[in-house]
Amino acid sequence: MFKDATSTEIENIMQNAWKAFHLYRKFSLTQRADFMRTIAIELDSCGDALIQTAMAETNLPEARLRGERARTIFQLNSYAEACEKGSWLNACIDTAIPDKTPPKPDIRKMLVPLGPVVVFGASNFPFAYSTAGGDTACVFAAGCPVILKAHPAHAQTSNLVATAILLAADKCQMPKGIFTHVYGASFEVGKNLVSHPYTKAVAFTGSYLGGTQLFDWGNQRKEPIPVFAEMGSINPIFLLPEKLKSAANEIAMMCAGSITMGVGQFCTNPGLIIGIEGDALQTFIHDLGKAIQKIEPSSMLHNGIVNAYKKNKDNALLQEDVHLVAESETMVLENQGLPTIATASGQTFLNNPVLHQEVFGPYSIVIRCKDMKEMIEVAESLEGQLSATFMATENEVKDNTELVETVKNICGRFILNNVPTGVEVCLSMHHGGPFPATTDNRFSSVGADGIKRFARPIAFQNWSNNLLPDELKNENTFGIWRTVNNEFTKDPI
Amino acid sequence: MFKDATSTEIENIMQNAWKAFHLYRKFSLTQRADFMRTIAIELDSCGDALIQTAMAETNLPEARLRGERARTIFQLNSYAEACEKGSWLNACIDTAIPDKTPPKPDIRKMLVPLGPVVVFGASNFPFAYSTAGGDTACVFAAGCPVILKAHPAHAQTSNLVATAILLAADKCQMPKGIFTHVYGASFEVGKNLVSHPYTKAVAFTGSYLGGTQLFDWGNQRKEPIPVFAEMGSINPIFLLPEKLKSAANEIAMMCAGSITMGVGQFCTNPGLIIGIEGDALQTFIHDLGKAIQKIEPSSMLHNGIVNAYKKNKDNALLQEDVHLVAESETMVLENQGLPTIATASGQTFLNNPVLHQEVFGPYSIVIRCKDMKEMIEVAESLEGQLSATFMATENEVKDNTELVETVKNICGRFILNNVPTGVEVCLSMHHGGPFPATTDNRFSSVGADGIKRFARPIAFQNWSNNLLPDELKNENTFGIWRTVNNEFTKDPI
Repeated sequence: MFKDATSTEIENIMQNAWKAFHLYRKFSLTQRADFMRTIAIELDSCGDALIQTAMAETNLPEARLRGERARTIFQLNSYAEACEKGSWLNACIDTAIPDKTPPKPDIRKMLVPLGPVVVFGASNFPFAYSTAGGDTACVFAAGCPVILKAHPAHAQTSNLVATAILLAADKCQMPKGIFTHVYGASFEVGKNLVSHPYTKAVAFTGSYLGGTQLFDWGNQRKEPIPVFAEMGSINPIFLLPEKLKSAANEIAMMCAGSITMGVGQFCTNPGLIIGIEGDALQTFIHDLGKAIQKIEPSSMLHNGIVNAYKKNKDNALLQEDVHLVAESETMVLENQGLPTIATASGQTFLNNPVLHQEVFGPYSIVIRCKDMKEMIEVAESLEGQLSATFMATENEVKDNTELVETVKNICGRFILNNVPTGVEVCLSMHHGGPFPATTDNRFSSVGADGIKRFARPIAFQNWSNNLLPDELKNENTFGIWRTVNNEFTKDPI
Repeated sequence: MFKDATSTEIENIMQNAWKAFHLYRKFSLTQRADFMRTIAIELDSCGDALIQTAMAETNLPEARLRGERARTIFQLNSYAEACEKGSWLNACIDTAIPDKTPPKPDIRKMLVPLGPVVVFGASNFPFAYSTAGGDTACVFAAGCPVILKAHPAHAQTSNLVATAILLAADKCQMPKGIFTHVYGASFEVGKNLVSHPYTKAVAFTGSYLGGTQLFDWGNQRKEPIPVFAEMGSINPIFLLPEKLKSAANEIAMMCAGSITMGVGQFCTNPGLIIGIEGDALQTFIHDLGKAIQKIEPSSMLHNGIVNAYKKNKDNALLQEDVHLVAESETMVLENQGLPTIATASGQTFLNNPVLHQEVFGPYSIVIRCKDMKEMIEVAESLEGQLSATFMATENEVKDNTELVETVKNICGRFILNNVPTGVEVCLSMHHGGPFPATTDNRFSSVGADGIKRFARPIAFQNWSNNLLPDELKNENTFGIWRTVNNEFTKDPI
C-alpha cells in the first residue's frame, strides 16, 4: 500500500525541507522544545490503536511496545528540556581587549543547525529509534528539519507516528517541510535522499552493510556530509576468574536474560562471552546452557531478520571446533529465533574471523581462554564495540590493567558487573563506539548530547551586543551556562 | 639532504607510536601540560638560529617569524592550561537511582584519546601550523602521540623544531615514540601514514587537492578515521551601501592591508569583495586600487606557491568581462607575488565558477552587484567559507536579514567591520567552516576546543568510585567542571 518515493517527489521534498530550514533555524530554543513536547503529547494520544498496529507489524509484545512508546515520550521531553537549557550550544565568549597588540576583538561562538537531516527508521525500535525516535528528537532540538525514511517492516506504524508529528507541527505553527515522511523499500530512495545537495546530515541505526553504504554515499558527494550510522556490535562480556568463582550461577542467569531479551534484537546484545578455563567456567557454561534451554523462543521482527539469524547462527555453529552448548527446549516456529549458546577455545576464536561477526538474535558464544595472556590476546583481536562488560571483583580490575586498558580502547561504554542491554537515556550515556560499531564514535545516539550531531560552531567577531543572537548577548536572558573569558558562568556580562 | 621515509621505516614508526599511545594516554592532564610547556621553553631556547633558518627557507621576514614563534609558544602554553583545567573532557555524571524501574545504574562519561595522529606541516605557517604548531599541541593535550610529516619547503626548520620537541620529551620522560618526525616529498609517504591501521586521526592545513586526497584515503580505510583538513577559502567581504558611503576610503585601506598581509598567504585572506553599484563603490574601488599600487611586492614562500599564484591570477584576469583595476607599481621579481585587484559584475561572477576559486596570494576581485537582490544571489552561490565579513551599519544588519542569514549559513566565522586576517587564538574562536573550507566543520583548528578533535567519549557504567578515572571520581580532586545529574558543578559528589 505504500509506494516508493520517485526522484521528482524527493526533489520536491528536499526543496520544502530547505525552505523550512531557513525558517525553523531562527525559532527559539523554547519554540523547538514546545514542538517536541507537543509531539510527545500527540504520540501519547495515538493510544491503543498505535500499539495494536505496531504489534501486528513487528511481532513485539504489547508490554514492550507500551514501554518503548513511554521511552520515546521520555526522550522527546528530556531532550526538549536539554534543548531549552542550552548547555549543548557550547556558548563561549571572549570579550575584547582593545589595548592588546594587535587589539583582541570581541569573539562569541555557539552551535548553529546544519540543515535538513535524513533519518532512517530502525526495524528493532519501531518507536524509540524510528519516526519520532531519538534521532528525530535530536534533529528538531538542533534546529533542523527531518526527512524520515520509514522502515518498510513497520510502514503502517511509522505512518501513524508521522501523522502525530504533523499534527503537532500544525498545532505549533511549524513551517511546511519541517517533517516529511518518505517510503522506500529500494536502495534508490535512500541513495537519492543521502545524495541530495540540500541534505546536510544522515542518522541511521541498523546493519553494517546498510550503515557503511550510507557512509560511503555521504563521503562521495561533491560536498561530503556527516553520516551517523550505529551498526551494532557483539558486546563482549569478560568473566574474570575470582568473580566467576563466587557467582557463576548468578552471572549465568544475568547473561541468559540479556542474551534473550527482546529475542536478542538489540544492538547491545552480548554475543560474546570470554572466560578462562577452569571449574568456575564449566559451571557457568552449564548453568547458562540450562537457563537457555528453559527460555521459550519468540517471534522475531520480520522475515529478513529471522532468515539472517538462522543463516548466521548455523554458519557460526558449522565452524571448525565450535560446539553447541544448548538451545531452547521448546519447538521453534517459522518466524521465531531459537535461543542458542555455543562454545569454542581462545585459539579457535583468534584464528577464525567468522566468530568475530555479529549474529543478530538470541545467540552467544562462550570463549574458553587458557589463561589471562590469551584473554588479553582475544581482547586485542576485537574490532570496535558499542559496549564491553567486565564481571570482576575490585581486585581483579586493579590487578589486570593491561586487560582493562585494552578493552577501554575498543569500546564506547564500559560496564562493570551489569549487563549491556538496557541503554539508559541520560546525558552521561555514550551510545557509540569505535568503527565498525559506529561510523562516528565522537557522537552518541542516546542522550541529549546526541543533539550536537546536527550542529556546527559559528564565531561572531566584533558584533555589537544588540545584533548578536540572544544566546550570546551580554544580558544572558535565558540564563544559559556559557564560558566567558575561559570561565563557566551563568552571569550576564 | 632529507630522504623520504620508506614503508619499512613507517611501519616501525607506527609500531612505536602505538606503544607510546598505550603509555601516554594514562599520563595525567598535568603531565601532558608540563610536556607542552617544556616544548614551549625549548622552542624559545632555539633562539636566533631557528629564526635565521626559517627566514632562509620561507622568505618570510624576521619580524613575522619572531611573532609567529611567539604565537606558537602562546598556543602551547594556553592549550596546556586548557588541557589541565579539563573542561574539554566534557565530564558528565549521572548517579544511580536504584529504586527506579528498571534501576538506573551509575553512569559517568568523559573524553579519552583516539590514538596516534598524523599531523601534516603547513607551508604558510612554518611554526604555528607546523611541527610544534596548533595541531601538535592539541594532539598532545588530548593524550595522543604525534607523527609529524614535515613540509618539504621548510624541512630544515621543521627538523630544528623536532629536535626541540624530542629534547622536551626526554626531559619530561615521555615514552619513546611520543613524537616522530617524518620526511616525505612524495604522495606515497602521506598515503602510507594515513592508511596505517595504527593511525587514528589526521590533521592538515593546505590546499583543496591535498586535503580532499587525505580525506578520501581516511574514509577508504577498512576502519575509516577522521581527517581534519583545513583547505582555505575566499573569505568574502560584503560592503553594504550606507556603511560604504560613510567610510569608503577607510574600508579600502583596511581591505588593502588585509589582502596583501603576509603576501596574501593566509587561508583567511579576503579574495572576494562584494558591493552594490554606485558612487560609493566607485570611490572604494578607486581608493583600493590606489592603495594596492603603492604596496611593494614581497617574496612568496616557495616556487610552487609563486607559480600557482601567477597562473591562477592570470587565469582569473583572462575570464570574460573581468577587468584589472590595479597592480602594484613596483617591478615584481621572479619569486614575488604582485598585489592585484580585479573587478567584475554580479552576473559575470554568478555565471563563471572560475571566479569562485581561491587565488592563493595578494589578489582580490571586487564584484559589482546591481542591487541587494543580486548581492543575495551572489551570497547564495558561494561554497562554504572559513570566514565572511560584513562592512555595515547597525541598521543595515537589522534591515537585511535575508543576506545576514544566507551568509551565516555558509561561514565558520562572521565578522562585522573588521578584517578576516589575524585569527585570534582563544576558546571562542572557530577556525573551520562548511566544506570545502574544511572537511569537518564541527571542529576548530584554532583555540583549545581543537583538542576535542583527537578524543572520543567513553561511558563507565556501574563502576565503584575507586576504580574510576580520577576525573570521574566523587572527590573531583582536580576541581574540574562536570555535569552532575544535569547540572554544571565543580563540587564533589
